[in-house]
This record gives sequence, structure tokens and C-alpha cells, in this order.
Amino acid sequence: MIYLDNAATTRPDKECLEKANQFLYDNYYNPSALYAEGYNLHLNLKQARKNILSCIADDGFDLVITSCGTEADNHALFCAGKRGNVVTTMGEHSAVYNAANELKQRGIEVRFVPLNADGSVNAEKLSELVDSKTSLVSVIHVNNETGAINDINAIARMVKAKNKNALFHADGVQAFGKISFRLDKCVDLYSISAHKIGGMKGTGALIKRKSLVLKPYIYGGGQESGLRSGTENVFGIKMFEFAALKRYSDIKKYFEQVKNLHNAMWNELDKSLFTRISPENGSPYILTVGAEGVRGETILHEADDLGIIIGTGSACSSNEKKRYSRVILSCGISENIADGILRLSFSPENTLEEVIEAAKILNKLVKNRKDIMA
Amino acid sequence: MIYLDNAATTRPDKECLEKANQFLYDNYYNPSALYAEGYNLHLNLKQARKNILSCIADDGFDLVITSCGTEADNHALFCAGKRGNVVTTMGEHSAVYNAANELKQRGIEVRFVPLNADGSVNAEKLSELVDSKTSLVSVIHVNNETGAINDINAIARMVKAKNKNALFHADGVQAFGKISFRLDKCVDLYSISAHKIGGMKGTGALIKRKSLVLKPYIYGGGQESGLRSGTENVFGIKMFEFAALKRYSDIKKYFEQVKNLHNAMWNELDKSLFTRISPENGSPYILTVGAEGVRGETILHEADDLGIIIGTGSACSSNEKKRYSRVILSCGISENIADGILRLSFSPENTLEEVIEAAKILNKLVKNRKDIMA
Repeated sequence: MIYLDNAATTRPDKECLEKANQFLYDNYYNPSALYAEGYNLHLNLKQARKNILSCIADDGFDLVITSCGTEADNHALFCAGKRGNVVTTMGEHSAVYNAANELKQRGIEVRFVPLNADGSVNAEKLSELVDSKTSLVSVIHVNNETGAINDINAIARMVKAKNKNALFHADGVQAFGKISFRLDKCVDLYSISAHKIGGMKGTGALIKRKSLVLKPYIYGGGQESGLRSGTENVFGIKMFEFAALKRYSDIKKYFEQVKNLHNAMWNELDKSLFTRISPENGSPYILTVGAEGVRGETILHEADDLGIIIGTGSACSSNEKKRYSRVILSCGISENIADGILRLSFSPENTLEEVIEAAKILNKLVKNRKDIMA
Repeated sequence: MIYLDNAATTRPDKECLEKANQFLYDNYYNPSALYAEGYNLHLNLKQARKNILSCIADDGFDLVITSCGTEADNHALFCAGKRGNVVTTMGEHSAVYNAANELKQRGIEVRFVPLNADGSVNAEKLSELVDSKTSLVSVIHVNNETGAINDINAIARMVKAKNKNALFHADGVQAFGKISFRLDKCVDLYSISAHKIGGMKGTGALIKRKSLVLKPYIYGGGQESGLRSGTENVFGIKMFEFAALKRYSDIKKYFEQVKNLHNAMWNELDKSLFTRISPENGSPYILTVGAEGVRGETILHEADDLGIIIGTGSACSSNEKKRYSRVILSCGISENIADGILRLSFSPENTLEEVIEAAKILNKLVKNRKDIMA
């Protein structure tokens, strides 16, 4: 089986699982408990937060563990998005996009910035839409459907130059652990997730500028310095820590490794069948292509039967049951190609042989399908 | 080591871990993915929701998986608590209590009902506070600090009789999997948690009356029928299912077993040193006692050194760094006893020998401490 849907979720990293294993069963206490066993877990969590944060940020930031990237995005949008207006993009993950639409329902003006053809945000248009009444700007760091990278540090600086009181949030779920990057002090909030980099589903984090006063989104026992209550998912958090440390221990090597996979895949795909949607300079972890005249979903199922697992876009949007991806259409892609979108997403665990074999099978499947339909 | 802080968290059940093990590593796909492996997990989650729900509710209810009991409580309070007024009790877990206080900050009138001496809610006072403008009533099912059981079905019926439009929510975190109980159709919302019954930290659920239209609290990819977005924590959810099914497979046997532990503990404790706070007819899973003239925290640490793990109240309140428990003071307990509160909480995994040994040690420790201070 060849798994090429790593942007949807990754297999938990085996080495990290072994390291975190003690927190699965033996070390099961409540980290808020006062006895030594609880306090030991409290210290373990403190270390985890510090280690995860240190991967991309300096002392000017802190980190609130959440249950997932979606919760982190919601926390940012609902607690930092205020009256005036909120500016975000057509390229956001549904966690930001749908939270922004809910803000709109509540009477807050939301401005959606259009995309460039590769899925990156049109920074010039964004700049035009930010004004003195903007309370929050939210821009995805790496587009989860095309892999386009937005230069969020530069965008954050531009936003602050136009309105120093506007807060800047970025959804970094597809960037964290993949792209070499440090948070600029102009970024106020940044969402990340564990299960995209070898951690477990059920853990994410919201990184925040330390001096930013943010309200909690989930109230209760005061965990996470009062910013996110609920008994801490210790095992998930330690897995997150270990996975992040592993990825960042050699992030450039992994990047090059995955870039080779990405390039090999694109080289091997038949250009008469596939149109490249992903930019050349995007995240190598994602290669999105359009197979004109076929349905992506059909190819996905046919590939699955042959042991090749690929995506057709954001797994999260499958629940919305819409035929075309909002993000892909916002790139200006025609419906004919949008119908045949395939998202191939890699992890350092994939091999060159896997990728080449998958490409050959995809060539064959798309060709067959087109022959049948011709 | 003798672990008697099971109301804070339980050790994950070993049998359930073995059953759920396939979802930890091998079966790691995204349940929203369209290929067969993803769809298989989608079906697995459907089964889990159904099985968990069937433990305490009939077809008139459905279930939204959340990241914890606290999130479920917040979902209920923030999405069902509207203008008019919200009625809750002084005996709530901080997840409800602090969410209610946040509602108050937002300009919603919140009425807190006083407690009886055992920590149960004063139902007569509650009835007086519910009026035609009440949007939501929230009452804890089993008090997490004393084990007092509120007859939430009767209270819900009473609330509906006074105002049929008022919604009724109960925090069932310390009841689910412990008390034999079925949800009455007058209950609209009910919160539960996995890690109090042998499941993992990081999973809970909000049970809702099927016909109730509730807004999501976390927006995004539309998981949980659009009511709770975010990639599902498959492993945690299957652990929750298995733990719930195990507890409910023989809930009365476990109840009797734990009642024996509870009674043995109370029999063995020196009545000249300990005052009983928990009611006789409360949940046997919790025995809260007050040791007048000593600090509970001191006894907790001394017991810990001897391998006995006990609590002093809600683990969640330790983050609030308040000397006295709000709930205990609301029972009308004097500060002198409130200072020496110990919460002993059981699981079916505890043995009679453990409990008797722990009681003997607690007798010794409290006596020594009092002798030293005398």
C-alpha cells in the first residue's frame, strides 16, 4: 500500500510512539493533581509546550495546547475577530473560512481576499482591504489544497504598517514541521496540528504573542494558563512534542527528501493528461494536479483498489459534499479541471519507488478512463 | 501504589487498549477521506457514537463527540444559554461554573442555585429561580466533589413544567459509566467524558435531544454532522466506546463492587478524625471526608510518599489556586473542615485490601499531624 494523502493525516511516527508509550498507560495521572505523579506530568507538559514552541518561535511567544488545528483557528477567529472588520482569504481551510462566515452571521463585516492562480493570496488586494477598522487578518501559511506558500511574515508586517492595532493570525497546519520558518514578531497568532507531522489526531496548538491578551475559548478548570480548560491529553501532547522535535531536528533534510519525491512524481506524470495546479515554489509536501475530463473521485477509488491512496483536496471538505472545491475555483481553475483534481501529499516516510509506481498507475488510470469516456 | 483519585482520571482500561490498539497505529487514516480505508473509519466512528449513546439514551437522542467534558459543557452553555436568564448551581464543575460566569460577563443574567449540605442542589430554590425568561438550566448530575446525586430527570421535568421553552443541560461526567441511569426526554443536553471511566484523556461527548437545533461551537470541515469540526480523534473515540460498553455491560455489578469499597473505607476511617461530607445515598465512586484541623494538601503529600494517591477535591480547581473549594463552602462546611478535605474516589479496579490499607494509613497520618500540631 502506497499512502500519498499525508496532508489529510499522517501515520503516527513509530519512534515517537515508542517514546510516548509511557504516557499511554503507565503514566496516566491528571496533570492538575497535586501529588508528585501529577506534578511530574505538569512538568512534562511544560517541557512539551516549550519544545514545540522553540521549533518556530522565540521567547516572545507562548503556546496554548488545543484539541486540534480547527479549535486553534476557531479560538483565534472568535476571540480576536471583533467589530470593525475581519480580513481573510478565499484560500483558507474551512476551519478559518467557516468561522469567518459565522462571524459574518453575527454581524461582523468579513472581507475575503481573492487568490492568485496557484492558490496563494493576492497580497496587493489584501493590503487594499485592510483599513483602520480591521480587527483581525487571517491568512493560511501553506495552502492545504495547492501547497502555495504565503509569505505570512511579510504580510503581517504589511498589515501592521497599515493598522498597528489589527491582529494577525495564520493557519500554519500545513507549514509546521515541513517548512523552515521562524515567526516574526508581527504575527500575533499561529495555529498548528500534531497529526499532520506524525503526531496523534486530537492535539493541536495556538501559538500567541506573549504580550497579547487573549480570552479563552473554552472555560473551566484553568488549564493552559487559563486559556484552554479541560484535562490535558498528555499522551497526545507528548506525541506532538516528539513528532515536532523529530521533524525540526533535520527539517531541511526532510524538505529536500520530500522535494525529490514531489519532483519525481511530477516528472513521471503524463503531461498530456495532468495539469499542474501547485506552484513550482510551493511546499513540496503537496502536489495538486488536475486531470481534465475525468472525475478525481473516480480515480481516487480506482487507485485505492490498486493500493494507492491519494486525496482529491481537503479531506475536511468531503463533509460539505460540494462537487467543486472553493479554493480550486478561487484559483480561477475551470470546472472541467476542478472536477478532476488529485492531491498527492508526501511525508518523509514515502520512498522514491513508491512515488514512481504511483505515478505510473495514475497515468494508466486516467488514460483508461479517458479512453472509456471518449 | 494505591490509586484512589479515580474521579480526577482513571488508568486507561487494559482490555480496551488492546481492542483499540489497531486505531493507534495501523488504522490511522482520516475518517473524512473518500477512499475505503477512510470510509471504514467513518463507519467505525458511527458505530462508536451509537454504542456510547445506547448506554444511557434511546433513539430520541444523538451524540456529538468533543475533545473533553469541558468542551461539551462549554458547547451547551455558550450555544444554549441566551438572553433572558440562565439558571445553574453553586455545585457545578468549573467547566459549567466558569462558562456561566463568562455568560454573565457578556450581559446575560445568571442565577446560581444554593446547595444542600451534601452538595446536591436545593431543588426548591432552583424551581423558584426558573421563570418564563429562563433560556437554559444546567445542573450537575453527580457532584464531582461530594458524589451527591441530583435527580436530573425529575429536575428537568420540573423545569419544563415551569417553562417549556427552557433548555435543560446536565454535566454527567461523574455519572456516566458509574450510575445506572437513562436520559428522560426532558433532558436536552448531557455532557460525558471518556477518561473518567477507563478511556483516554482528549475525548468526551455532548449528548443532545435529536430534535434540538443547536449551533456548533467549533466550525470547520463539518465533522460530527457539522456540530463539531476537526479531524476526529479515532483512537480516543474507539477507546471511549470500548470503555463505555465495558462499564455498562455490568454497571450494577461494578456499582455494588465500588459501594463495598466505599463502605469499607468509611468503616475503617477513624470517626474521631474524619467528618463525612459525602451523602449516604450518593455515588459510591466518591467518598469525601473532612479532617478537621489539618490541611488536606499536607495529608495528600504525606500519603503520596507512602504510595497512596488521593485527591483533595476537583483536580481541575487546583489551577485556580484557591485555598477553599467553592463547592465545599457552598455545602455550608466551615473553613476549618474545608481546609482538610480529602476526596477518595474509586474504580472497579481497586481492591478491598487496597482500600483498607489506605484507610489505616490515612488514620495514622491525620492522627500524627494533629498530634504534632497539638
